[in-house]
Amino acid sequence: MGQRAEVREVGLRDGLQLVKTVLSTEQKLEWCRRAAAAGMPEVEVTSFVPAKVVPQFVDADAVARGAVAMGGFVAAALVPNLRGAERAFETGVAKVNYVLSASEAHNLANVRRSTQESLDDFVRIVARRDEVAKGRSLIGAGIATAFGCTISGVVSEKRVVAIAEQLARAGADEIIVADTVGYGNPGQVERLVRAVVRAVGDVPVACHFHDTRGLGLANVVAALAAGVHRFDASLGGLGGCPFAPGATGNIDTEDCVFLLESLGYDTGIDIEALVKLRETVEGWLPGERFSGAIARAGLPKTFRAPVETAA
Amino acid sequence: MGQRAEVREVGLRDGLQLVKTVLSTEQKLEWCRRAAAAGMPEVEVTSFVPAKVVPQFVDADAVARGAVAMGGFVAAALVPNLRGAERAFETGVAKVNYVLSASEAHNLANVRRSTQESLDDFVRIVARRDEVAKGRSLIGAGIATAFGCTISGVVSEKRVVAIAEQLARAGADEIIVADTVGYGNPGQVERLVRAVVRAVGDVPVACHFHDTRGLGLANVVAALAAGVHRFDASLGGLGGCPFAPGATGNIDTEDCVFLLESLGYDTGIDIEALVKLRETVEGWLPGERFSGAIARAGLPKTFRAPVETAA
Repeated sequence: MGQRAEVREVGLRDGLQLVKTVLSTEQKLEWCRRAAAAGMPEVEVTSFVPAKVVPQFVDADAVARGAVAMGGFVAAALVPNLRGAERAFETGVAKVNYVLSASEAHNLANVRRSTQESLDDFVRIVARRDEVAKGRSLIGAGIATAFGCTISGVVSEKRVVAIAEQLARAGADEIIVADTVGYGNPGQVERLVRAVVRAVGDVPVACHFHDTRGLGLANVVAALAAGVHRFDASLGGLGGCPFAPGATGNIDTEDCVFLLESLGYDTGIDIEALVKLRETVEGWLPGERFSGAIARAGLPKTFRAPVETAA
Repeated sequence: MGQRAEVREVGLRDGLQLVKTVLSTEQKLEWCRRAAAAGMPEVEVTSFVPAKVVPQFVDADAVARGAVAMGGFVAAALVPNLRGAERAFETGVAKVNYVLSASEAHNLANVRRSTQESLDDFVRIVARRDEVAKGRSLIGAGIATAFGCTISGVVSEKRVVAIAEQLARAGADEIIVADTVGYGNPGQVERLVRAVVRAVGDVPVACHFHDTRGLGLANVVAALAAGVHRFDASLGGLGGCPFAPGATGNIDTEDCVFLLESLGYDTGIDIEALVKLRETVEGWLPGERFSGAIARAGLPKTFRAPVETAA
């Protein structure tokens, strides 16, 4: 058995926030159920943004409660601010993911406040969790545009590391380094993620990559080299960002699991079950762009076969 | 200026062997001319397979002679056997690429002979080159299905290394390790390619990856780590293999150049010029599948920008 690596489904949140079709609560819960049944340890099931901003998430409470009731996996929810976090804690989700942007311009476009104001809000969210959900809900802290920004270009690596340190000190249970706009390359990922891992001590680090420029899976390999074993991914590569022009989806869940298993990591995830689930979700979302190679090409005959090495 | 890395266009050969449209000689030569003008150091311009096997290459002599006459880049041609090599030498191409399969079953399907018979043929090709084109034509030796085979599954790494040694000893000027069917993963690539590099001494090693299962660019990064700086790629990811069911195209030239330049390597290639050339070639080949992320998403704002690192 190889070393453990974790792939977490974010398609229900990152994937759904830009699609034309609003899925029913039942469809969303079927997606959760089947992702968990395929072995996914954690699913980001919804987002507690105001429904007037993203109508797709009008049923956030019902989806979160439904997912929590299923059990068997970590039901996580994204929150943009303290109000969203309070709603999330009420549903009993096991994890609340808060995101801010390292790029000031992107943070302003996304949540209309400065990065520092978002950091201050994080402190309040942790305090609120300690009042109402201590020992029940973990808090993940995401750093968006960590590898560059479509609005402001280069993002200082020192700044990303400093933000990660502040989030860890403020009580984050996990730091999620996110390439929101698909600007990262493997050299940069290995360097910056290694610096973040070093800076945050015992707090686990996860990576969230988009495959906008084809480097998503190469960036996963680079993050592994930097000591990260937790990755966000979206079924069929669904996703994008409303404030990141040209941004395409997250790395593809099936392909990411295939990569990790091929490298000898144990994800506990059944790729064939994911491919079937993907077919169902594609049927629900006509006209959306789904990417991913394994769903098209199938697993290689050599998958998991013992190899006679030259050494 | 970074370390040099070489990306060679193989779309005119690997890309065209399965498409429905037969391009005119003039179109093929325009492709060569513009690839060279974009800075590509080497272009595999055609294949000397019998025209009754692949009608696309009925004009192989004219394309090869036309490309040689242009100058300014290494015009290479694929050859399947001694007869093809003799035709290629007559055109004056600067490089002849001979390919055999490490998988016995794939070699039989591809050229109807055993791998050993193909190795014996290679010896005759080198001897023939020494008679008619010594000092004028280099000989590249490709090892197809080096990372696994759609027909026979696992390919022994010991066997691949032994074949590479034999080819080097027989006089190959370059060994090309090829993942013909897109089975390779970065761990396997780094391990096997490192073993090949070690085995062949001073003979340079190149890699030829297909992106069938999404790992093509991650495999490039792994090959760099193993000491390889020469990569085959195809404009728009065009390509496949007639005897590799489900195989999609080579890694995409534009994306491969983007990756290498992002990592700080100097390819000497103008990505924007490649994207324009790709648009032209897409216009010539209606109904074909073109892949690639840079042509869709554009270069990041941060491309080649100085980075303020955390270190």
